[in-house]
Amino acid sequence: MQVEAGPLLQNITFPDDLRSLKETDLEEVCKELRQYIIDIVSVNGGHFAASLGVVELTVALHYALNTPYDQIIFDVGHQAYGHKILTGRREEFHTNRILGGISGFPKRSESAYDAFGVGHSSTSISAALGMAVASAYKGETDRQHVAIIGDGALTGGMAFEALNHAGIEKSNLLVILNDNCMSIDPNVGAMKEYLTSITTSKSYNRFRDDLVSVLAKISKKGPNAYGWAKKLEQSIKGTLLKNSNLFESLNFRYFGPVDGHDVNKLVKTIEDLKHINGPKLLHVVTVKGKGYALAEKDQTKWHAPGLFDKITGEIKKSVSDKPQPPKYQDVFGHTLVELAEENKNIMGITPAMPSGSSMNIMMKAMPDRAFDVGIAEQHAVTFSAGLAAQGLVPFCNIYSSFMQRSYDQVIHDVALQKLNVVFCLDRAGLVGADGPTHHGAYDIAFMRCIPNMIVASPMNEEELRNMMYSAQLPDIGPYTIRYPRGNGVMPDWKLPFKEIPIGKGRKLVDGEEIAILTFGHIGNEATKAIRNLNADGIHPGHYDMRFAKPLDEALLHEVFQKYNKVITVEDGCLPGGIGSAILEFMADHNYEAHVQRLGIPDGIIEHGEQAELWNICGYDAAGIENEVRKMTKGIKTETLVG
Amino acid sequence: MQVEAGPLLQNITFPDDLRSLKETDLEEVCKELRQYIIDIVSVNGGHFAASLGVVELTVALHYALNTPYDQIIFDVGHQAYGHKILTGRREEFHTNRILGGISGFPKRSESAYDAFGVGHSSTSISAALGMAVASAYKGETDRQHVAIIGDGALTGGMAFEALNHAGIEKSNLLVILNDNCMSIDPNVGAMKEYLTSITTSKSYNRFRDDLVSVLAKISKKGPNAYGWAKKLEQSIKGTLLKNSNLFESLNFRYFGPVDGHDVNKLVKTIEDLKHINGPKLLHVVTVKGKGYALAEKDQTKWHAPGLFDKITGEIKKSVSDKPQPPKYQDVFGHTLVELAEENKNIMGITPAMPSGSSMNIMMKAMPDRAFDVGIAEQHAVTFSAGLAAQGLVPFCNIYSSFMQRSYDQVIHDVALQKLNVVFCLDRAGLVGADGPTHHGAYDIAFMRCIPNMIVASPMNEEELRNMMYSAQLPDIGPYTIRYPRGNGVMPDWKLPFKEIPIGKGRKLVDGEEIAILTFGHIGNEATKAIRNLNADGIHPGHYDMRFAKPLDEALLHEVFQKYNKVITVEDGCLPGGIGSAILEFMADHNYEAHVQRLGIPDGIIEHGEQAELWNICGYDAAGIENEVRKMTKGIKTETLVG
Repeated sequence: MQVEAGPLLQNITFPDDLRSLKETDLEEVCKELRQYIIDIVSVNGGHFAASLGVVELTVALHYALNTPYDQIIFDVGHQAYGHKILTGRREEFHTNRILGGISGFPKRSESAYDAFGVGHSSTSISAALGMAVASAYKGETDRQHVAIIGDGALTGGMAFEALNHAGIEKSNLLVILNDNCMSIDPNVGAMKEYLTSITTSKSYNRFRDDLVSVLAKISKKGPNAYGWAKKLEQSIKGTLLKNSNLFESLNFRYFGPVDGHDVNKLVKTIEDLKHINGPKLLHVVTVKGKGYALAEKDQTKWHAPGLFDKITGEIKKSVSDKPQPPKYQDVFGHTLVELAEENKNIMGITPAMPSGSSMNIMMKAMPDRAFDVGIAEQHAVTFSAGLAAQGLVPFCNIYSSFMQRSYDQVIHDVALQKLNVVFCLDRAGLVGADGPTHHGAYDIAFMRCIPNMIVASPMNEEELRNMMYSAQLPDIGPYTIRYPRGNGVMPDWKLPFKEIPIGKGRKLVDGEEIAILTFGHIGNEATKAIRNLNADGIHPGHYDMRFAKPLDEALLHEVFQKYNKVITVEDGCLPGGIGSAILEFMADHNYEAHVQRLGIPDGIIEHGEQAELWNICGYDAAGIENEVRKMTKGIKTETLVG
Repeated sequence: MQVEAGPLLQNITFPDDLRSLKETDLEEVCKELRQYIIDIVSVNGGHFAASLGVVELTVALHYALNTPYDQIIFDVGHQAYGHKILTGRREEFHTNRILGGISGFPKRSESAYDAFGVGHSSTSISAALGMAVASAYKGETDRQHVAIIGDGALTGGMAFEALNHAGIEKSNLLVILNDNCMSIDPNVGAMKEYLTSITTSKSYNRFRDDLVSVLAKISKKGPNAYGWAKKLEQSIKGTLLKNSNLFESLNFRYFGPVDGHDVNKLVKTIEDLKHINGPKLLHVVTVKGKGYALAEKDQTKWHAPGLFDKITGEIKKSVSDKPQPPKYQDVFGHTLVELAEENKNIMGITPAMPSGSSMNIMMKAMPDRAFDVGIAEQHAVTFSAGLAAQGLVPFCNIYSSFMQRSYDQVIHDVALQKLNVVFCLDRAGLVGADGPTHHGAYDIAFMRCIPNMIVASPMNEEELRNMMYSAQLPDIGPYTIRYPRGNGVMPDWKLPFKEIPIGKGRKLVDGEEIAILTFGHIGNEATKAIRNLNADGIHPGHYDMRFAKPLDEALLHEVFQKYNKVITVEDGCLPGGIGSAILEFMADHNYEAHVQRLGIPDGIIEHGEQAELWNICGYDAAGIENEVRKMTKGIKTETLVG
């Protein structure tokens, strides 16, 4: 769909064009930029509310700074659409998140204006500090380095680590706190309450001004009063003022809060700050979804709403006559409540993903038993371990790629102590449009090397339910269940629970000559492949491994005694994955067979639709079918010969 | 060596015995406990200064609280020797850190008084909060949960994540900040400066008192002055006082600072705090090494000094006539400076391990190019990525098991962007006395599944130097070098640099029938094994793989074309390790061979000396020799037959 940019925006290809405009034009630029984002995202999808909230800030930064020499890092980066449009990518913006198109996140390889690749939260201050320190070392004293971080991202521990370090470096770093009280869901925690207190109460700077005036007035009361006032002032300055703001406690100079939608004020402030050396923090208050009324009103829903009618605000849903299979995340959410109703020991934990993981279902049903702990995966895991140490059974739901953040805690606090924590890894495997930063590619490899860890993956909704049921039985120890983004395969999925013994796989299809061993939802692609192959007289066996650890050794003995051609299929990286685990089993038991492993190859898989990516990686139904035909070539298939 | 406890300590087996004493006895108990620690550690080794620093705190906690019902979590835990001695382990304390003896860290399986296993830094608040929330849920309203965390550990981001969450929970949590200005090395960062400012300047509480008195005096000046004073007071209370302390900003009630060596004051304070609900923080100031003058003076040296003469303070060194091989860490430290002198782009980064990693050599030689960023592995990696994004070549040195903390940053910020960061993973493999929490067991598996990542390991000092040299050449991308705790094998190691091409292994010994493929320092055990085997007419080939990723495929083709019996040896976990990578190569190239993988089996390896643990795991020289004999049985060896 052709979308026309407004008259000013049309002439902005790069920030230099923006900088050639008058300050009085900037409000209009913001208006056009906001409209352009609405126009494109409504028909292409993608993240929405976050970019609307930082339109003025984005324009102001590029106007006041000399980008790309000056460097801007957007934390997380899904708010950087305006930035992309202003930095050479307006015309490609409609390809956002589409296979072969531009990335939904800033990306170094895409543009010199994308100073640092982002995607996961809370990295920007560390990266910007590294750049600032590098510039200081190279003598580039005029160069600006800006990290724009939300109040949600600030709850991630590494942001604090970076502040703690930045506070003692003399390099030129500006942290802009984009305070909108939101993660994807409303932000939580003490820091959020603190920020609210300094923005809603009389501001810190205002107080400072007041103080001076009060002291001046007291002083006028005579020499005695002057003495007291002086003493008081010194006392306040010496003890309190210096540390009276949390950021100033960490040696940052704090400025703000300022209105994040006043573009001219922002330009002036940023220009002023260029001339102040050392670590400084500018507190900017914005409204997520700003300028699109519905988004302002329901910011979680409009975080990434999919396609919508920009006039009516109606969000478009795919229509179907038949009942559709549910999302795995919803199966998780509802099943957790079902289980928790029976087992009083079950608790739910999410690090800032209530709606993304469907933990919000339990948070609503059992508010005292389900916790959003903020963007804080490390804490989420060890907090869960603490609950488990008291005999409770926490279900800790973390997206696969975010679980990388809490890897040490999984090993050190859960696995070594063999605590009953159930890790539900949503978005495992290739996630689609979010791309490389969000692909849950490595979890099979990095979880199965951990002692005491059970690593399971359901092929469908019923299996997910049964794995969750089995994981909460007494004394099970750490139990990981990985499942993909998106929908399952069973419209009727609320079946009674059945226990799945730990490490017990299942034979789905008895076959001949070649066996396909699958792990998780991707097994459904094998089922499709087998349907086609059967039509050509090829009859592979199909085994759903269910567990990458422990492996079902009895099942594998059956497989390798019967078959000498085996294909393993996983929606995960090939190095160290379940295919590799099966090779270990073979080596340990001296089996010989021709084993072909299908999965994510060792490299970066870009963004695109999930099905497209599976196809590119060669483990969708077509890829599996093709592999079976290759390995059984000339024996069963006539179609290939012709 | 028989060590006699003092008369009071002799009668304390469990905290109940301690609690039956009079308060006036506590100072004497502290004296005896301190002496007992000195007596035992001087002859057995272990961590030293940290436990001396918390003697009074430990006694006070067990005296004032009802342990083990009330729960104490020592962050890191190497300061918990006094705790162990007071909780049923006085008589076994001499077995501390010895194979089969008690652990050097609190451990749930060892004692009910060890409420949560620790080892890595900054976990205690999360765990204690989990326990406190569990108690609240179960209605155990009288139960106390205490996290004792050092100011060093507080720089770890997950501690902040936990504070942020704890500030909004109403559960019964007491965080005791053990402020001694130290990690293993002096603590760094803005937080440390902040804590110093509140302890050295007039204290916060003192200021509050002063303020009241000053305001009272002003008020006496007449009704006008009274009005101003009132206004001022309200203004201060409303805006400043509420948030004037960093911890109060996070909704914690802050108490202190108090003298951490006044045991009776501590008892009283802790008893008072039991009756205050919600999250609270007690700031305790202690001296690391307290009571042993030399340790107070050089706290880094006395962190874990090894054996020493407790009277003279002389630290015992193993004496040898011959020059000894250096520690790998020192080869790293000196080589880094050598390389940095030539390559101006090289920078050094350590997360709070200057002396442990020998990064202190560069910090001394080039203070503007080497950074201690605090206990902050996540930040260390992304900060390095920021440096690399500006064209610098950071050498980021992190112990293997601590690298688990920054796994996401390695993937997300370094590997996906293919930045030239060199990760030096010290303490890779089994580390010895520190035990399971510190074993660097998993890095081969978790690093080699990352795209773009080079994973190397040197067999000796020269190889380490050459890998470091090769890693800093232009445009190499992310490069991991793992090496073990302890000494190398080459007394003369300062050899000229030679480039090692990426992914190039080497054949050390041409052999017959069976090949041994080793990775890293452990290859020296194979060399010893081969010496013995040769004497019996068995001649294995020996290949030093050097790289777990990329594998030397040419070398492997040579191996599998020649040998059908292969042993792989690695000082790392078997699931997903280099043995597994070699099986993947075989599968991908359709090789068949009998492959036996030696390495850390899939389970928890306890503490003990490194050589003992290698032996238990079966990959020391004896284990390798044994495996070769088994696999070549009846063919070459006569010794086995008889």
